[in-house]
Amino acid sequence: MPDDASPRPTQPRREREVARWDLDADVVVVGLGCAGACAAVEAAEAGARVLVLEQAAAGGGTSALSGGLIYLGGGTPVQKACGYDDTPEEMFKFLLYGSGPGADEPKVRLYCERSVEHFHWLEAHGVPFKRSFYPEPSMEAPTDDCLVFCGGEDTHPYNTIARPAPRGHKPQAPRAAGGFLMQRLLAAVERAGARLECDIGARTLVLDGTDRVAGLIALRDGQEQAVRARRGVVLSAGGFILDAEMVAQHCPALARCGWKLSSGHDDGTALRMGLGAGAAAIHMDAGEVALGLTPPRRLVRGVLVNGQGQRFINEDAYYGRIAQASIYRQGGEMYWIHDDDTYEVNDLGMEASWVADSIAELEREVGLPDGALQATLELYNRHAARAVDPLFHKGAQFLKPLDRPPFGCIDLRAQTRDYATFTLGGLRTRPGGEVLTADADPIPGLFAAGRTASGLAAFGYSSGISLGDGSFFGRLAGRSAARG
Amino acid sequence: MPDDASPRPTQPRREREVARWDLDADVVVVGLGCAGACAAVEAAEAGARVLVLEQAAAGGGTSALSGGLIYLGGGTPVQKACGYDDTPEEMFKFLLYGSGPGADEPKVRLYCERSVEHFHWLEAHGVPFKRSFYPEPSMEAPTDDCLVFCGGEDTHPYNTIARPAPRGHKPQAPRAAGGFLMQRLLAAVERAGARLECDIGARTLVLDGTDRVAGLIALRDGQEQAVRARRGVVLSAGGFILDAEMVAQHCPALARCGWKLSSGHDDGTALRMGLGAGAAAIHMDAGEVALGLTPPRRLVRGVLVNGQGQRFINEDAYYGRIAQASIYRQGGEMYWIHDDDTYEVNDLGMEASWVADSIAELEREVGLPDGALQATLELYNRHAARAVDPLFHKGAQFLKPLDRPPFGCIDLRAQTRDYATFTLGGLRTRPGGEVLTADADPIPGLFAAGRTASGLAAFGYSSGISLGDGSFFGRLAGRSAARG
Repeated sequence: MPDDASPRPTQPRREREVARWDLDADVVVVGLGCAGACAAVEAAEAGARVLVLEQAAAGGGTSALSGGLIYLGGGTPVQKACGYDDTPEEMFKFLLYGSGPGADEPKVRLYCERSVEHFHWLEAHGVPFKRSFYPEPSMEAPTDDCLVFCGGEDTHPYNTIARPAPRGHKPQAPRAAGGFLMQRLLAAVERAGARLECDIGARTLVLDGTDRVAGLIALRDGQEQAVRARRGVVLSAGGFILDAEMVAQHCPALARCGWKLSSGHDDGTALRMGLGAGAAAIHMDAGEVALGLTPPRRLVRGVLVNGQGQRFINEDAYYGRIAQASIYRQGGEMYWIHDDDTYEVNDLGMEASWVADSIAELEREVGLPDGALQATLELYNRHAARAVDPLFHKGAQFLKPLDRPPFGCIDLRAQTRDYATFTLGGLRTRPGGEVLTADADPIPGLFAAGRTASGLAAFGYSSGISLGDGSFFGRLAGRSAARG
Repeated sequence: MPDDASPRPTQPRREREVARWDLDADVVVVGLGCAGACAAVEAAEAGARVLVLEQAAAGGGTSALSGGLIYLGGGTPVQKACGYDDTPEEMFKFLLYGSGPGADEPKVRLYCERSVEHFHWLEAHGVPFKRSFYPEPSMEAPTDDCLVFCGGEDTHPYNTIARPAPRGHKPQAPRAAGGFLMQRLLAAVERAGARLECDIGARTLVLDGTDRVAGLIALRDGQEQAVRARRGVVLSAGGFILDAEMVAQHCPALARCGWKLSSGHDDGTALRMGLGAGAAAIHMDAGEVALGLTPPRRLVRGVLVNGQGQRFINEDAYYGRIAQASIYRQGGEMYWIHDDDTYEVNDLGMEASWVADSIAELEREVGLPDGALQATLELYNRHAARAVDPLFHKGAQFLKPLDRPPFGCIDLRAQTRDYATFTLGGLRTRPGGEVLTADADPIPGLFAAGRTASGLAAFGYSSGISLGDGSFFGRLAGRSAARG
């Protein structure tokens, strides 16, 4: 956060107040994560002189800390090689429903129609994908394998909306590939001829006499730098999860999450710069929330309950959905019930906090309402014995009565586990990256992508969406900015 | 909504572009509902020349359509006369918790500390309150009685947070008193000497060379009118529930509600005018949602369940909480289960859509998951027989096993009932009404109150909050604007 003497992001400077330009480019990209890198590459390839400003000492941003999954589909070479028959239309049906309510239909449609092209673009720019499938869903493979289910496509209700296909594509590197992805993209930025300045933080936009964005004011070593952008500025500097006041004003539920996913600069400055130039911010209540429950996947045979001992979701759902439901709808109260058959310690080392010889005893020990957990499990077990789950439609392969003592409960409350989160709301943009006012008018010279913008996920999230829409719409924003 | 040739609310005019001022005042108030009226009175009483612009043919706005309840407390004369011992501190504890998460603590505190003064101000300005209590909670009395519980203060969890007191104050008029309230406030506006222009819609702000608000552009008979505001503009023109696009971008859950509470002009124009001048909008996901389930109150003995046949709230909660929970957390799926003892047709004529001789049969007829409603009622009945509700803490007086056939289910799904709604998000303001940027800087010359601003209710709502914070913070905004 800038101190009080610094320029205020929401108070754009007037061009007439700029004595001289310290730096000059056609396109100025603010923030060198995934979205900024792709914007810079496209703008430079389109012939623009590109200057990238990065607040940190090097590029990478929060993208480099990620697992590296990119949501791609519609029939990518990896999907085909692994025997999955996906189409843009099936991908669209899933994403429109799964990203809502309130998802931006034209954005979702364009993303799905061009997803295969985007896959090839990534490969052409140095990001390889192994033609292989990894069966453990929801997260990147620990190997260099590529394809995973990462949004619960094969679980209820999504499997009733669209034909399931795995669409999480991890670049070919072991384990978390976000760092690898960004290495490759940063190399592409360099190859494209974009100029990179690090340790320089954009602070507020500069508007000309017609309210067109003409550049920006940045701070380097405490000194103001006036940066001219002859064709456009692309804001791609992440979200606002580190700004506690903005979180309280827009998405207070996320304050329950202990783990703010950020490389240290997601303080909403770029978003406020856009607001200062007249942009609208939308879907500001939305946040990604994750809690890694599996692997191993067998744990899904347990049952998740809230503070009233009630189930509230199918346990085979994408764990981002589960954690989001816990934080937004259950006040962060979640317990994971197992019997002797289903219990094991997951890869993150989550152990049972309570163990008992009967469900009644477990209920008492956990402090759930008298009889509530018993009623929940009686109903669940009766159905599970017939391999059905009429309440939440958990997949039959995970249904088994919890009837083998001892019973255990893994405490998943927000007060005891660090739910991982980042914000999804941001500047309103057209698919081409043009930043819009609340009247849907574009702000000349201003573009945004990545978590500074509201992207595909209006509320519902799947793994790989942020790198996916950041890279794809980052490219479009870079191209739009190069056109000016 | 203005057509394309009209000024865009988010594009403020520059003062140098204004050839001449058609109208001139010290303080210009935009919108003459409850907040605008109180702002106009205070500004005029402070010595300012006040001009009120109303888009409709007469003042009143959505406030005039309301039930007229005003949330007041801390020991008002009515509370005292009726034997209720309330304090500002107890009121504060309730409102801070009940208006959250994310409630604005300084605003809530000031409102509670000055609530008794505000009561006297209202009476001194022609709004009388009978010293009487009406026992049916949540809505205005059909008589001219005054005081009601209107936010579930005496129900769980609020009765564990603060000492319960009724705080809904209805002006002394039979049934819905919003029209009466506005008659009295409009008379006060006239007496104070404020000038009123009707059939004129404010469209965008005018900024001077220092970005101070200098006035606004309005439309009358399709012609632009430049309106000078020498000290300040107060935006008090309602919310944005009529703008389907804004609802989709900020609070898509509210699209499920069939009844948009508005006198016809809550299209977000005033809010967008503020955005155009650099204001921040906060808590934009929040909405009031109501469905009148009682009177008679005896109906509370029934049980509310979601689409999984599970309870999700104490049925004696304020019905605004119930409807909000249904729309935001249960996808608008809600069913009301009764037995022969508890069933009756409520004052709104809601009848059972399904009737059966057993719960199992009722469950099948409604189409709830096999065994789910039976499990819910078995647990509920067992506890109700001992007058406890360990899951949701419904009050003992409403607990009775549902065991007398026939059983009935009243369909309360959003697809079959018109949930009433309006938006709660709006411009970020200081308690004094100063409109703030996302950097918390005031925008010189700009003030807001009522549903154009984010007020007391960050998310949680009680009846009487909108007239309450509209009138109270409207007064403060008027006074601040008069100071300039």
